[in-house]
Amino acid sequence: MTAPAMSSFPLYQQIARKLRASIEAGTLPAGAKMPSVRTLGKDHGVSILTALQALRLLEQEHLVEARPKSGFYVAPQRDTLPAEARPIELAPLEDQAQTHLSIVGTPCRVRLDLANGEAALYPVAKLGILMRQLIYRDPTLLGNHVRGTGHPPLKQQIVRRAFDYGCELSPQELVITHGCIESLALALRAVTRPGDGVAVESPTYFVILQMLRSLGLRAVEISASERGMDLAQLKLALKAGQLRAVISIANINNPTGITLSPEDKSRLVALAERYDVALIEDDIYGDTHFDPVRPRPLRALSDKVILCSSFSKTLAPGIRVGWVAGGRWSSAIASMKYSSTMGTAIYPQAAIAEFLRTGGYDAHLRKLRHTLHKQMTRMRDAIIRHFPAGTVASNPSGGYVLWIRLPAGSLSSRRLFEQARREGIGIAPGYLFAAGGQFDDCIRLNAGFGWNKDVEHAIQTLAGMLGKPWPIRCPAEDW
Amino acid sequence: MTAPAMSSFPLYQQIARKLRASIEAGTLPAGAKMPSVRTLGKDHGVSILTALQALRLLEQEHLVEARPKSGFYVAPQRDTLPAEARPIELAPLEDQAQTHLSIVGTPCRVRLDLANGEAALYPVAKLGILMRQLIYRDPTLLGNHVRGTGHPPLKQQIVRRAFDYGCELSPQELVITHGCIESLALALRAVTRPGDGVAVESPTYFVILQMLRSLGLRAVEISASERGMDLAQLKLALKAGQLRAVISIANINNPTGITLSPEDKSRLVALAERYDVALIEDDIYGDTHFDPVRPRPLRALSDKVILCSSFSKTLAPGIRVGWVAGGRWSSAIASMKYSSTMGTAIYPQAAIAEFLRTGGYDAHLRKLRHTLHKQMTRMRDAIIRHFPAGTVASNPSGGYVLWIRLPAGSLSSRRLFEQARREGIGIAPGYLFAAGGQFDDCIRLNAGFGWNKDVEHAIQTLAGMLGKPWPIRCPAEDW
Repeated sequence: MTAPAMSSFPLYQQIARKLRASIEAGTLPAGAKMPSVRTLGKDHGVSILTALQALRLLEQEHLVEARPKSGFYVAPQRDTLPAEARPIELAPLEDQAQTHLSIVGTPCRVRLDLANGEAALYPVAKLGILMRQLIYRDPTLLGNHVRGTGHPPLKQQIVRRAFDYGCELSPQELVITHGCIESLALALRAVTRPGDGVAVESPTYFVILQMLRSLGLRAVEISASERGMDLAQLKLALKAGQLRAVISIANINNPTGITLSPEDKSRLVALAERYDVALIEDDIYGDTHFDPVRPRPLRALSDKVILCSSFSKTLAPGIRVGWVAGGRWSSAIASMKYSSTMGTAIYPQAAIAEFLRTGGYDAHLRKLRHTLHKQMTRMRDAIIRHFPAGTVASNPSGGYVLWIRLPAGSLSSRRLFEQARREGIGIAPGYLFAAGGQFDDCIRLNAGFGWNKDVEHAIQTLAGMLGKPWPIRCPAEDW
Repeated sequence: MTAPAMSSFPLYQQIARKLRASIEAGTLPAGAKMPSVRTLGKDHGVSILTALQALRLLEQEHLVEARPKSGFYVAPQRDTLPAEARPIELAPLEDQAQTHLSIVGTPCRVRLDLANGEAALYPVAKLGILMRQLIYRDPTLLGNHVRGTGHPPLKQQIVRRAFDYGCELSPQELVITHGCIESLALALRAVTRPGDGVAVESPTYFVILQMLRSLGLRAVEISASERGMDLAQLKLALKAGQLRAVISIANINNPTGITLSPEDKSRLVALAERYDVALIEDDIYGDTHFDPVRPRPLRALSDKVILCSSFSKTLAPGIRVGWVAGGRWSSAIASMKYSSTMGTAIYPQAAIAEFLRTGGYDAHLRKLRHTLHKQMTRMRDAIIRHFPAGTVASNPSGGYVLWIRLPAGSLSSRRLFEQARREGIGIAPGYLFAAGGQFDDCIRLNAGFGWNKDVEHAIQTLAGMLGKPWPIRCPAEDW
């Protein structure tokens, strides 16, 4: 949709863009009368109708207001609204996407940039055997065209497990996908149309931001640094009528590792219902909790929540099988899936279903969670030991990643990213996690690849790049 | 994007819809003055701006014209423009998608509805062994996250083979996908934005129409019944400035089986270049030609063509691996892929690459093409023998499917589809192959599932449903 290389934007959008810049620069201050459609038409050599279309677009963005029989005026400053609740510019998509692709696409020595672990963490040998047995017994698993919305035995297993953590899903509402990214993209496309606003946590997983841009949606970023999404901010955005949907990684957020409190989960679900916006939940890390009890998804509180997940963080990062429970949206999601990727191959679905059915998944998860927790603790300790004073490290409730705020005056995340790559160390720079690049003082580190000399040395190298590697503990206010 | 279940369309679209209906019904004839924005505003209880937006939308659709200082008028009948070159209605998406899902999703006894064959047609056993060996040797194929735009050895094989049929692709421009549908969807999203017009052959593969709708694009249908896309019609649509892209199945069209002549291929490529629209080619059936020589893709004539294909029609329908060579659009396509499905699993890519590398693909293709040709000829003969006089059958240049025009006064394709399903016979009803349902006197039949008693009996049963099963040969004008 957003193809910067394309010839040019329609005229009215070009005019709107200029006006928007003037408003944001303050050249056209709040309350100022906008140029009339006649003036605009004359100045830009376009028809009155085109000029009107430009103003109308700004009105939709709440940047100007129409006053009857008078014309358009710059809207008052919305001090009560979250500063981030503004449409993002579409320009950097290509750029950012290329950075991401270079992150995941090029090898480096120490992979602190990803959000998964080495193959040894996963039951890939057993999955491989299952897949080999299944294909051996029934080669038509490859030969048959892909039917419907997923392999029924896999759907059954998903429904059974979801029941254990408080969600009543039905096989009919499930669509099996090529991973959680596809689940989220299909859910978004089913509930929005281009131009709609979608609330996301800020910071949030960078691919979600990129997805919103590529679908022509506006990211409305709601602060989520400390205890998860700021629900007061969200309420303001909902009140302003800016939103069509909310995406939340309420369990074990990426990048912060935060799990929303049960009370805030209830409040979030209630807000979405009250303002009638779709609530899309990314629960991909839910099964990797460090606490003994698995956190409940938002979906456990309301069957209106669209629940997205996959097996990439628990069974095999390379297997590319995910799912979405779409509730009342499930038929729209199934249609989108059909015209986007047709269907998901059966043989990996069959292997996963067999693995889940024959047991061992729970034992595997216990081990995985224990390992991740241990690795995370070690990495966090090393960061506190080696990084400069003033560094603040998150305290994740599960998963793979740590979110680190660097002390004031450090290298920017972008610079650190570039310097680290030269040493063969991958990190995820913070500026990727918000549309406006506002977390350039943060980085995300992956604890999935074990704790060993290489990783320890990488942490020390990063600390060295950040300035004097003071061996001073970071302040008490970890979060 | 287009979710009919969503609250409601914006007011201006609702108003435009009513006006459009009046124009199309002739209540507002060509040349008539449209209601003024004031009248419209009053009648619909909306602001003048909203009323203007409605008229503006109709203007964009070339249904009304603005005359300076006078207002809007119904545009003259565009006799010189293709009748089909009108925006399609979005309403039936859900409906149609559900029909498709029910076609592929529910079993039936005789599968004349699909466009592939039984597992025995494909080297699935060998692919299964390769996949088993690869996973056994390297289980990390499942454990590793998915990197970049595809598995380099597979890209190499694709480039090598494409060179043999006249296309110079580069590994850098290739993105490996989950099948040709994903390739087409990514290409479309890279070159268009919602609201754009995209020319398609009419009839064309129904999923393409559905894809256009789900992406908020307008299908501009160019007649393609006899010798492939009518290039004079296409030129008119291009001249009218209605198009951002053209999708063509120039080799072995689905559903007609037609391959565009080399001259027309050149003309099509030249037209797209001259009017600077993106040309997206679906070459999924290219390798299944009946003639000794493989038809050249449009891409062989210009590296500006975006070439899409997959291994679903030649190697294994259930493996879900396709590719797109995006040329100058490749980085936009890679970004779209990343935020839509992240990446494609490596293990099936590795198995296909190994199969292509170690040979046997050409021998397999020769056998496949021979079998398909034989089955197609037998099915076509049976149709000519059993179907009522006046039936016209296509004469496919390759692939799996026959396109049949039923004689005047027969059952509609929709009725025949429903009656046939009751007998356990799947057919693809013609009305699916055009946005306006205009091929309801046609059906598409699949010759992929062998020629046997069941299939022969199914053809006879269909003939019986169509009326007296006169054993009269169809007229000479086969195409």
